[in-house]
Amino acid sequence: MKTRVAIMGYGNLGRGVELALRNSPDMEFVAVFSRRDPAKVSIKTTDVPVISVNDIDAYQDKVDVLIICGGSATDLPKQTPQYVKKFNVVDSFDTHACIPDHFAAVDAAGKETNHVGVISVGWDPGLFSLARVYSHAVLPVGKDYTFWGKGVSQGHSDAVRRIPGVKDAKQYTIPVKTALDAVRAGKNPELTTREKHTREVFAVLEEGADAEAVTKAIVTMPNYFSDYDTTVHFISEEEMKRDHSGLAHGGFVIRSGKTGTDGEHNHIFELALTLDSNPEFTGSVLVAYARAAHRIAREGGTGCRTALDIAPAYLCPESGEELRAHLL
Amino acid sequence: MKTRVAIMGYGNLGRGVELALRNSPDMEFVAVFSRRDPAKVSIKTTDVPVISVNDIDAYQDKVDVLIICGGSATDLPKQTPQYVKKFNVVDSFDTHACIPDHFAAVDAAGKETNHVGVISVGWDPGLFSLARVYSHAVLPVGKDYTFWGKGVSQGHSDAVRRIPGVKDAKQYTIPVKTALDAVRAGKNPELTTREKHTREVFAVLEEGADAEAVTKAIVTMPNYFSDYDTTVHFISEEEMKRDHSGLAHGGFVIRSGKTGTDGEHNHIFELALTLDSNPEFTGSVLVAYARAAHRIAREGGTGCRTALDIAPAYLCPESGEELRAHLL
Repeated sequence: MKTRVAIMGYGNLGRGVELALRNSPDMEFVAVFSRRDPAKVSIKTTDVPVISVNDIDAYQDKVDVLIICGGSATDLPKQTPQYVKKFNVVDSFDTHACIPDHFAAVDAAGKETNHVGVISVGWDPGLFSLARVYSHAVLPVGKDYTFWGKGVSQGHSDAVRRIPGVKDAKQYTIPVKTALDAVRAGKNPELTTREKHTREVFAVLEEGADAEAVTKAIVTMPNYFSDYDTTVHFISEEEMKRDHSGLAHGGFVIRSGKTGTDGEHNHIFELALTLDSNPEFTGSVLVAYARAAHRIAREGGTGCRTALDIAPAYLCPESGEELRAHLL
Repeated sequence: MKTRVAIMGYGNLGRGVELALRNSPDMEFVAVFSRRDPAKVSIKTTDVPVISVNDIDAYQDKVDVLIICGGSATDLPKQTPQYVKKFNVVDSFDTHACIPDHFAAVDAAGKETNHVGVISVGWDPGLFSLARVYSHAVLPVGKDYTFWGKGVSQGHSDAVRRIPGVKDAKQYTIPVKTALDAVRAGKNPELTTREKHTREVFAVLEEGADAEAVTKAIVTMPNYFSDYDTTVHFISEEEMKRDHSGLAHGGFVIRSGKTGTDGEHNHIFELALTLDSNPEFTGSVLVAYARAAHRIAREGGTGCRTALDIAPAYLCPESGEELRAHLL
């Protein structure tokens, strides 16, 4: 019996989920739900129906797991607690500071209606959280480091675009190699914000805009840039389109921990991700956790789960016997 | 309420577990069980009692989890199924091909007597298994690579020591950097045994032994060396003691996987471990899973588990709330 999956919200992430479902023969892609006019949404690789969210109730018996692909700022805090009342759901809520509230809302609604909600799965939070928790459990005396990039930060790109005179912008977050190397060497450095990451901005100016003023507005912007060393490049619209439309990302979680009679032995645990497509990789993680959500629901589980609450075997279509024989 | 832990078998690994327990304030180290004469076993950092295995039954109510630190060749296949009849147990059984049989034996004995047995936890199998399963679940279309080293292989060192004329020997397994780099670059190479690892031997000769004959015996040894490029160094006993008594190890699990309409996007997932002390790190993993075993037992679980069956949060002393707030 396949897991019947529907996608809510068909942007970059929704398309990433769609592509991931094609690599999962145990999953069946049954529908896309959209707030837009369904006639105006065209699905990339299949002919699944596009349904208005207003008609979603008719699908309660046809969908095992709903993967909600909205944004963390305004969509998911409303959608996930709302739709877990009707479906088992999975989301990629990534505002770390708000996860406890989001968890509580989804947990209450899911328990009330006997559904499962798996939240905050992707790569950070998600796989990076797993790396932090496993390494922390195994090396309780130690120090954690998370580095992001090289990759595009959507929030920082938006901030630059809001500066008068800027027509378009992309901002890359780049880990500082000397800092990474010091961590990997077990030196346990205390690193300031500036020492961990640099920022690189590619911007297209409006005609007649003052490049020097824009540069100053970028590099001095509080919270976003003032604590970092930032390089600004002005390029043409054609160059922006040609060289900066990719969605690559990645990063590193490193724990450096000590054991021994006097902490004389050091150990380095490092998870590194190098991703050609952030939304396609995140979509792939969501699909693996949709499989887990369905299994938890079949076993009678209800309420909210994060990646930390779910055994690794639940993400795989293979049986326990197969996993032990081939992957353990 | 602390988890009361006992160690069975006090060699390098048992001492690694002892040191890991010192870093875990939620665990209480209560006893060492030994097949040796207890009077002749002296415990490194504490004054816990050393008890003969013959008297172990008296400890059934005093121990929550027994960590069995025997060898995989002959000890664990007997000990783990035997002692899971009396205790919740954890072991680091690492003969990959025999894990299904070991699992079945521990599962049957544990279910019969209402105990939990967590097997095959360490770094491979263990953390490396987790990396293989998570990356396989998230990137079902892809290719796995496991590299070991640089580190000492006990089995290969023993094989060299059995050659006539060899007084002592240490064998290092070393991953080939060009192979690692090709995998990290997403080239998905097909690698032969020879292309993945090299072997380096340091040997002390008996007086009058023929160095050339010993070298030939090493590099042509079937299964152990003939499929590898092996370098042999002859050194003095003093050099062996001074330069080669360390127990460092490590390795890499890398999955290179594709997503997209036509697999046009590549993703690299890499777990790298660099360990100053193999037994102390493995002991630290055993202690984290002892915590999990106790929690599973308290919840009424019985039978066998591997790392794949246990949710990450079970390894941590912190509550779900704390983990979500700080590590997710």
